[in-house]
Amino acid sequence: MSIDKSSPSSPKASKGAQANMQWGGRFAAGPAAIMNEINASISFDQALWRQDIRGSLAHAAMLCKVGIISADDLKAIEGGLAGIAAEIEQGTFPFSDALEDIHMNIEARLSERIGEAGKRLHTARSRNDQVATDFRLWVRDAIDGVVAQTESLMATLAKRALENASQPMPGFTHLQIAQPVTFGHHLLAYVEMLGRDRSRLLDGRRRLNQSPLGSAALAGTSFPIDRHMTAQALGFDGPTRNSLDAVSDRDFALEFLGALSIQAMHLSRLAEEIVQWTSTPFNFASLSDAFTTGSSIMPQKRNPDAAELVRGKTGRITGDFIALLTVMKGLPLAYAKDSQEDKEPVFDAVRAITLSLAAMDGMVADITPNRERMREMAGAAFATATDLADWLVRELKVPFRTAHHVTGQLVAMAEKRDVALEQLPLEDMRTVEPRIHQGIYSVLDVDSSLASRTSFGGTAPENVRCAAQEWLARLNQA
Amino acid sequence: MSIDKSSPSSPKASKGAQANMQWGGRFAAGPAAIMNEINASISFDQALWRQDIRGSLAHAAMLCKVGIISADDLKAIEGGLAGIAAEIEQGTFPFSDALEDIHMNIEARLSERIGEAGKRLHTARSRNDQVATDFRLWVRDAIDGVVAQTESLMATLAKRALENASQPMPGFTHLQIAQPVTFGHHLLAYVEMLGRDRSRLLDGRRRLNQSPLGSAALAGTSFPIDRHMTAQALGFDGPTRNSLDAVSDRDFALEFLGALSIQAMHLSRLAEEIVQWTSTPFNFASLSDAFTTGSSIMPQKRNPDAAELVRGKTGRITGDFIALLTVMKGLPLAYAKDSQEDKEPVFDAVRAITLSLAAMDGMVADITPNRERMREMAGAAFATATDLADWLVRELKVPFRTAHHVTGQLVAMAEKRDVALEQLPLEDMRTVEPRIHQGIYSVLDVDSSLASRTSFGGTAPENVRCAAQEWLARLNQA
Amino acid sequence: MSIDKSSPSSPKASKGAQANMQWGGRFAAGPAAIMNEINASISFDQALWRQDIRGSLAHAAMLCKVGIISADDLKAIEGGLAGIAAEIEQGTFPFSDALEDIHMNIEARLSERIGEAGKRLHTARSRNDQVATDFRLWVRDAIDGVVAQTESLMATLAKRALENASQPMPGFTHLQIAQPVTFGHHLLAYVEMLGRDRSRLLDGRRRLNQSPLGSAALAGTSFPIDRHMTAQALGFDGPTRNSLDAVSDRDFALEFLGALSIQAMHLSRLAEEIVQWTSTPFNFASLSDAFTTGSSIMPQKRNPDAAELVRGKTGRITGDFIALLTVMKGLPLAYAKDSQEDKEPVFDAVRAITLSLAAMDGMVADITPNRERMREMAGAAFATATDLADWLVRELKVPFRTAHHVTGQLVAMAEKRDVALEQLPLEDMRTVEPRIHQGIYSVLDVDSSLASRTSFGGTAPENVRCAAQEWLARLNQA
Amino acid sequence: MSIDKSSPSSPKASKGAQANMQWGGRFAAGPAAIMNEINASISFDQALWRQDIRGSLAHAAMLCKVGIISADDLKAIEGGLAGIAAEIEQGTFPFSDALEDIHMNIEARLSERIGEAGKRLHTARSRNDQVATDFRLWVRDAIDGVVAQTESLMATLAKRALENASQPMPGFTHLQIAQPVTFGHHLLAYVEMLGRDRSRLLDGRRRLNQSPLGSAALAGTSFPIDRHMTAQALGFDGPTRNSLDAVSDRDFALEFLGALSIQAMHLSRLAEEIVQWTSTPFNFASLSDAFTTGSSIMPQKRNPDAAELVRGKTGRITGDFIALLTVMKGLPLAYAKDSQEDKEPVFDAVRAITLSLAAMDGMVADITPNRERMREMAGAAFATATDLADWLVRELKVPFRTAHHVTGQLVAMAEKRDVALEQLPLEDMRTVEPRIHQGIYSVLDVDSSLASRTSFGGTAPENVRCAAQEWLARLNQA
Repeated sequence: MSIDKSSPSSPKASKGAQANMQWGGRFAAGPAAIMNEINASISFDQALWRQDIRGSLAHAAMLCKVGIISADDLKAIEGGLAGIAAEIEQGTFPFSDALEDIHMNIEARLSERIGEAGKRLHTARSRNDQVATDFRLWVRDAIDGVVAQTESLMATLAKRALENASQPMPGFTHLQIAQPVTFGHHLLAYVEMLGRDRSRLLDGRRRLNQSPLGSAALAGTSFPIDRHMTAQALGFDGPTRNSLDAVSDRDFALEFLGALSIQAMHLSRLAEEIVQWTSTPFNFASLSDAFTTGSSIMPQKRNPDAAELVRGKTGRITGDFIALLTVMKGLPLAYAKDSQEDKEPVFDAVRAITLSLAAMDGMVADITPNRERMREMAGAAFATATDLADWLVRELKVPFRTAHHVTGQLVAMAEKRDVALEQLPLEDMRTVEPRIHQGIYSVLDVDSSLASRTSFGGTAPENVRCAAQEWLARLNQA
Repeated sequence: MSIDKSSPSSPKASKGAQANMQWGGRFAAGPAAIMNEINASISFDQALWRQDIRGSLAHAAMLCKVGIISADDLKAIEGGLAGIAAEIEQGTFPFSDALEDIHMNIEARLSERIGEAGKRLHTARSRNDQVATDFRLWVRDAIDGVVAQTESLMATLAKRALENASQPMPGFTHLQIAQPVTFGHHLLAYVEMLGRDRSRLLDGRRRLNQSPLGSAALAGTSFPIDRHMTAQALGFDGPTRNSLDAVSDRDFALEFLGALSIQAMHLSRLAEEIVQWTSTPFNFASLSDAFTTGSSIMPQKRNPDAAELVRGKTGRITGDFIALLTVMKGLPLAYAKDSQEDKEPVFDAVRAITLSLAAMDGMVADITPNRERMREMAGAAFATATDLADWLVRELKVPFRTAHHVTGQLVAMAEKRDVALEQLPLEDMRTVEPRIHQGIYSVLDVDSSLASRTSFGGTAPENVRCAAQEWLARLNQA
Repeated sequence: MSIDKSSPSSPKASKGAQANMQWGGRFAAGPAAIMNEINASISFDQALWRQDIRGSLAHAAMLCKVGIISADDLKAIEGGLAGIAAEIEQGTFPFSDALEDIHMNIEARLSERIGEAGKRLHTARSRNDQVATDFRLWVRDAIDGVVAQTESLMATLAKRALENASQPMPGFTHLQIAQPVTFGHHLLAYVEMLGRDRSRLLDGRRRLNQSPLGSAALAGTSFPIDRHMTAQALGFDGPTRNSLDAVSDRDFALEFLGALSIQAMHLSRLAEEIVQWTSTPFNFASLSDAFTTGSSIMPQKRNPDAAELVRGKTGRITGDFIALLTVMKGLPLAYAKDSQEDKEPVFDAVRAITLSLAAMDGMVADITPNRERMREMAGAAFATATDLADWLVRELKVPFRTAHHVTGQLVAMAEKRDVALEQLPLEDMRTVEPRIHQGIYSVLDVDSSLASRTSFGGTAPENVRCAAQEWLARLNQA
Repeated sequence: MSIDKSSPSSPKASKGAQANMQWGGRFAAGPAAIMNEINASISFDQALWRQDIRGSLAHAAMLCKVGIISADDLKAIEGGLAGIAAEIEQGTFPFSDALEDIHMNIEARLSERIGEAGKRLHTARSRNDQVATDFRLWVRDAIDGVVAQTESLMATLAKRALENASQPMPGFTHLQIAQPVTFGHHLLAYVEMLGRDRSRLLDGRRRLNQSPLGSAALAGTSFPIDRHMTAQALGFDGPTRNSLDAVSDRDFALEFLGALSIQAMHLSRLAEEIVQWTSTPFNFASLSDAFTTGSSIMPQKRNPDAAELVRGKTGRITGDFIALLTVMKGLPLAYAKDSQEDKEPVFDAVRAITLSLAAMDGMVADITPNRERMREMAGAAFATATDLADWLVRELKVPFRTAHHVTGQLVAMAEKRDVALEQLPLEDMRTVEPRIHQGIYSVLDVDSSLASRTSFGGTAPENVRCAAQEWLARLNQA
């Protein structure tokens, strides 16, 4: 390999210099500028301010209770923190990069405001357990938010399913029409997926819900603190059990990102279907202007941008999971600064899923099925062939595999003549299987097919209605 | 861009042709060879044979119970499947690529063996729900296996922790010595991680444990089947609730791979530590020949290959998760052949985690701490500075932040003189803070520091002993 | 967290034990069984046998040339290796797990066969540079194979493009019909993508093409070896320049996997389109039985399994890239056993891309466009609105944005009346823009639209024909 | 599965509601708020403003040249765009979310400022080719920036290598001391890696450097545009060759992210080594305060935060690659809104790599080797055993494998006696191999070992000096 500055693909020296100015050039000021930019986290971790203050209030109350600080100190701290909260909410808090992160910003400001008492707050605590606590509280709040949105989308899907419990649509395998299903049944499939997502998020929440506060830097502390008290005050189920693990553990964030990756994949599937359904060749459904964009030149065109963006956001959530998992790979105990890379992926994923759920909830409520087209396609492509085969088994006791074979011959006959199955005359059917009788026609139309699929979890309209109502009842929204 | 065949980096035509022979050349035989290789899954899904037979037995018993097949048919099917199981176990089963997958191989063989009755087995079932059922059963068995191995490793760690409950070692932050901890405490941190892994696996198992059998191709069936009966027979908690979801859902595999990704990351951290501990500069511990490789030329060298391989296997498990998540992204309902790509990543990940857990269990049992070196380093680098600061807060009521400052001055003094903290004379300490008295020396040695960290989850030997015993009791191995 | 053995989701003890037997149970034999399974690589690295022998031949010739071994030794080594190659090809080579890998297996066998001379072969070489060399050779061969297949697929696409240079089809944005394009133009878009893939693979090949042989364990050697000679003998452009880097570098494999990830993504896009084109609602094209599967029950149904599998295989290739990247993250120099995890992801990815390219080549050759349907849809949804707007700009000098607005009004008028644009009477158009004249009708039909898009890279049939021929000429297959 | 609102892990209703307010609650305003947030890209794509204006200037000049717009229009457009650039630089530009993206913001503002002429700018162009052009220009600038930083870091490494060309340090395999190397040689290994990164980036730049401008929406245009002219004006090597490909292709971004993923991995390795070298047990080197953080309590402690953050940032870059690859998977042609998810991962990765390179450049310049400790460890653990074996081969003509065996016996003897190899008396050595003579001692010390490794790419100080100077010369900084 040789570095040939004059090669056509090489940037010209002058351009290189200019590029350097624009990109890395901001670091010309030297190490201090670099360290500030790489090390300070205040630009993103200020999102934790509510959690940080909440944690400090719990910690201070406990320190007072066990006699480490006085009641006066506690009162001063509470007052100071309330003042700081007000400053942040009003946008007057003097954030400082030099103080690196939200924790030091708040603590330094507290000492400015209340003096000595402020300097006692950090007793029996370290930034390591503090940040672990704050971030858990934030993730817990985020889980609650995502769960609430998930429930809302589930309810919207279930309502639309109830409305469309008997609306036929083609059921696809390999994107080929296979058997009729109902649109309601199809929508309920996504309720099932989201129900698992919800359950997965709540399991993660339960595992997360232990308080690292009081683990100190990594070894615990010799102060007679009461970790159960702070845990309870912060809504945790109890304190974590090993101080080294507590300050280095980011499982709660990883598990959350893993669950969101799966959930985003579910949303990508529904988004893909919405894009297909509303495409010109499918024409199964349409979205209103609320969730589409148009062009001045083709005012009739409704581009499903929101659905496409939901589908696309899957990528970043998966990427966020990989990002944090890679950060943690091979890290020795206990705290390493690599862990500071934990927050931005989670913030990014939460923003993406929150938007995606809101957009999907809106689209599901908005979408208008094209009932005639759906029904027509539901019966196309000999979609009731399975019903015919099942009839042969049930009525004529033909073994299943043989029935498949017979059906195949009938479908081939219908295809050759370019007619639907129900348009084949009885006598012609009998050339294939002489025992076939008139009763066969009763299973060949779409509605009969749908009505017959009454097995548990099957697509029969009564099943769908029942399942939709059950979900709505569970979601307290029936 | 231009394709210049004569460029130096371009393969020569003849070489290209040869390469083509070696690589893609095997497809020269035409479409049939390609389709066979890309489409047939029998080369890997034969791993599901036990699950497939188990599922068929449950299905057949149900078909008989509800009157779809006769008692004689059932008997024939049971006999036939038993014979097939024997053939597979003995290696005499005639696997056929043309029959594509394990399901068709077994069913075709059954008809060969028992005739008509075999052709009735597939009534009210489809390959779609069959494969979903078989794979769930396989994953459930795999979870049980991984959980058992996880519990074994937890027990081994807890036993070693008990042995080393008071063995000092340095606690690191940023790989800098920060405070003394005990080796036992350190090992128990991994028990906590593995405890979460175990819990995560079992939550996934619970979510998985619903039976897709009877969902048929995608829409359910018109046969009067009893899905609760087959679910119960197969150890499921009940049947799945939506047939479209049931045949397309691979969440159970994804959630499993997600949980394994996190678990593998935990193992990578312990592996990294073992590599560091046994490295020449650390010299904290050694592994026996059982888990190391040597070289004929340096017989004293013990390369921690097993630990490195455990660390390395993290990558493939993460890759397996990404593989399947990417497969599922944007797939419309219901069944698509893409899903056939679900098994190999799971098989690969299970093989990797199973090996990793076994190797780690062995290494943890095997590792010998170098007690003197660990103790010496535990007290190096002024590791009890925090104890000194805490003493100032506790005994002299110095505010925490001020105590930090005072301690910093004392550490600087000791560093300048190149002595340990406990070697600073009282009068010199008093030049920094006049109220310091003799009592301060009682907190500066490693054992006192350790003994004092009695907060819940702290590193005090009595805490560690207690926590280790508690874990062993829970794991029924005390 | 508590471990409750009696919880419903917990495996029963007996089941756990059984599972343990089946899964981790094979390790009960102790450390030796574990170490063998985790450490030995012969099960997969035997794929490198050709490369290993080739490397040894080059090394031995060089050792002789510089006087380290005698001509007789060289002759013995060459004879011995030829014999080993024959044994492996005939399947009679006695592979041994105890010898761990392909390198030791071959070397040990060589000494068995030729005695002392065999023990001299490894002079001035180490397993570290040997494995790096062998794997580079393998990857280089694989690149040549993938490039050849890529060129073949490009040629097939270009041929089909030439055939379909004037076949109209709808061009989509957001899966909404936007403007007419030709099917040939669409196919050539993939030739461009594959052309970049090819170029990317060859750039990686050039970067790979340096010989690590002679870097020894990590520090080079004191023997007077001639690394340029071995490099040349093995077809490398020269020797690598730093021994530490040479034994630890796996960039060549990573870059290859990265390029394959992008290529697989391209194939996934074409596969998705094939699935959509052949779906019932699109009905743009059909595949023959050669690349589809059917069902006995619906003989007319052609499931595009091969296309779906190509789409699905994207996941595993991406996963393979992540797997190896994760392995390498944070590894200190020089050699670590983690690197042994480099081969399987590459082997897996090569198998997947090789299959995918072969299947895609076959499908592109096989696919039959449904000409009428494509043409009809090409003109649907007012797809020539842009042509109308461009006419207003060109003929009437209306500013572009204003022309868009006028066109929008005309489209809205046509939509309201449910007619095509060319069916709007001139007088009605003039109510929107009075200067519109008869000439406007000349741009509203599909063929005129296509013929007018003659800008470089545009879809005009003459462009497409020309581009297709140019590609075929480049690929030497015109 | 059942949704039990009263389960302990379920959020209380009131908390859920509150969470909903905080998270999804901002969407209560309805679809418009959701669509604005998900659809508008102006919040991040304003970073492209320079590229957008540059592209428009080139397009306008071409439109004028070919007669589509007048010279007066061109002048007005140039003036208007200059004014807009000034507004953006001064922070007075009225960015509007309603105009969605930077392209519409600028065009709309242009029409506001210059009227009709502004409405003609978009002739023969579409947002699809415009955004593709702008983003390519941005990525090209970013590549130039990263390449410049990479060259700077290479030069810094080469300079430090020259300084340390003969400084011994232990060469590790498996983190066990294996053979002596020089610190300079070790640093040059990273120059090789970065040299490949640089080369990879420039290859990607060459592939990127084609102009999509004039591809229009997807089909090209009927206007007589000159795409070669705009390509040249924008520094591209020529226009892209297929309009469908041009608007949908994001390979240039993916290839860039792939290359950055590999580069970040390289940086993670060096970062890991810096963390290890500066750790207490290694004590091979130290960083100044400029790149470490301390604590008030342990002023001697220097935490290598910058190195840890560089190591951690690997994760997000890998995640960014996966994010975009997942976005593109399975997308049909031509434009889909999913592609809007292309920019943020690239922006994020560029920010991360730019920071990482700057920090690493600073740390490499800053780091101080602990020369005594490095030298001492270089000779520890019988590190010259290979030299001994090579001496046996060279001087006594012992076959290599036999020499290994003999050496192993001598090392075992030295280990047993707890002495270094050079401390073994000659007569004792002769009990193992009688032909050993005094000459053997000349290869057993570290400096002799180093000096002897003169094979190409070996660690001999003269090699290292030469290689470092060669690199510096190439980088024009000797």
